[in-house]
Amino acid sequence: MQKNPHIAVVLSGCGRADGSEIHESVSALLCLENMGCTYQCFAPDIKQAAVINHLNNQPMNEERNVLIEAARIARGNILDLAEFKVEDFDGIIFPGGLGAVTNWCDFAAKGTQCTINTSIRSVIRQCHEHKVVIGAMCIAPVLIALVLADKHVHFTLGAGGATAEKLEKLGAVHEEVGVTDVCIDRKNRVCSTPAYMLATNMLDVCQGAQNMVGAMCQLIREK
Amino acid sequence: MQKNPHIAVVLSGCGRADGSEIHESVSALLCLENMGCTYQCFAPDIKQAAVINHLNNQPMNEERNVLIEAARIARGNILDLAEFKVEDFDGIIFPGGLGAVTNWCDFAAKGTQCTINTSIRSVIRQCHEHKVVIGAMCIAPVLIALVLADKHVHFTLGAGGATAEKLEKLGAVHEEVGVTDVCIDRKNRVCSTPAYMLATNMLDVCQGAQNMVGAMCQLIREK
Repeated sequence: MQKNPHIAVVLSGCGRADGSEIHESVSALLCLENMGCTYQCFAPDIKQAAVINHLNNQPMNEERNVLIEAARIARGNILDLAEFKVEDFDGIIFPGGLGAVTNWCDFAAKGTQCTINTSIRSVIRQCHEHKVVIGAMCIAPVLIALVLADKHVHFTLGAGGATAEKLEKLGAVHEEVGVTDVCIDRKNRVCSTPAYMLATNMLDVCQGAQNMVGAMCQLIREK
Repeated sequence: MQKNPHIAVVLSGCGRADGSEIHESVSALLCLENMGCTYQCFAPDIKQAAVINHLNNQPMNEERNVLIEAARIARGNILDLAEFKVEDFDGIIFPGGLGAVTNWCDFAAKGTQCTINTSIRSVIRQCHEHKVVIGAMCIAPVLIALVLADKHVHFTLGAGGATAEKLEKLGAVHEEVGVTDVCIDRKNRVCSTPAYMLATNMLDVCQGAQNMVGAMCQLIREK
């Protein structure tokens, strides 16, 4: 009997404006349980690029740590991303939230000239090499497109636009998909779904997560 | 045609150890959407009793505001509890998390001698008087038991124990229920479910939320 897929979930903080989008992260965990997967959360042990007041969207004069804040979503059951071992996992999920383009890399500020956190970059390259299936939601596919541009990875941000075009210039290939649909790159074993790039309610976010996890499980079975 | 139920969701911060439990809060919102309800999040504009590092459970030397942190779960769509108008709502939900007994009241420190935030207390009393259905998850039923002890409210914390016994001495009535079950007090129109008081996975938390929201909708229809 095949064992249940074991999936890493990488978080970038706790909150849509400066970390991981909470509904997307929780939906991913819920859908993993729903599909019989086990999971382990990770986050890099780094300072947040910013702390944003989610009531008025203004920066706060504070410092917070990505791993410590992400632990709120994971109820404390989370590891430093430095401890990630690629051979332990069948898949890996990157939920959205602006932390994906402010903490994992500085794409939000610098576009394709951005610097990517070395640990995040290394984990994505290792997963690709070891055929660990990669899932990304909302804005997080930007990171996958940046790191796997040389592999001409297919990704979705929902609709196209300026951000997708910048990433296509590097070699990645954007696909437009519907709000709960999944862009599946079978060759690179990467699944992405728009979530709050398009969604206006949580049911669609959760359905997109369910479809993405389902597509990931299918690719894992096909390995 | 009856309009869809409109439900207030009151948060106590963002994180199980010093605010609202994130999985329970998100499950409540998801299940409300699933049942065709609309909702509005609220939180009191007060300082958190503590800021807890969710990685090691130790206090941090920081101050945070309940409303601003709760806005992370609500994606900014949240109001100060002072703006709550009882006539606008058919139901109200209090998710769990230690914020329920540290921010909304100081039961965690002082037991039944605790002080309850006047705004929270007033909202619960108004809801009871106006037959607005009350839902509470995990540790949050403690608050309902404290405020409606004189009404001999029935509530659950899952299993019984010292906390339940303290509240029964005030006049509230504890009922033991299973992990995804709902304690329904038809007279007082209060529903409660154990969530992470008993749950060891998110599927059970979400199923409990679904059962609680379902029971609340039934009571709303029976009004």
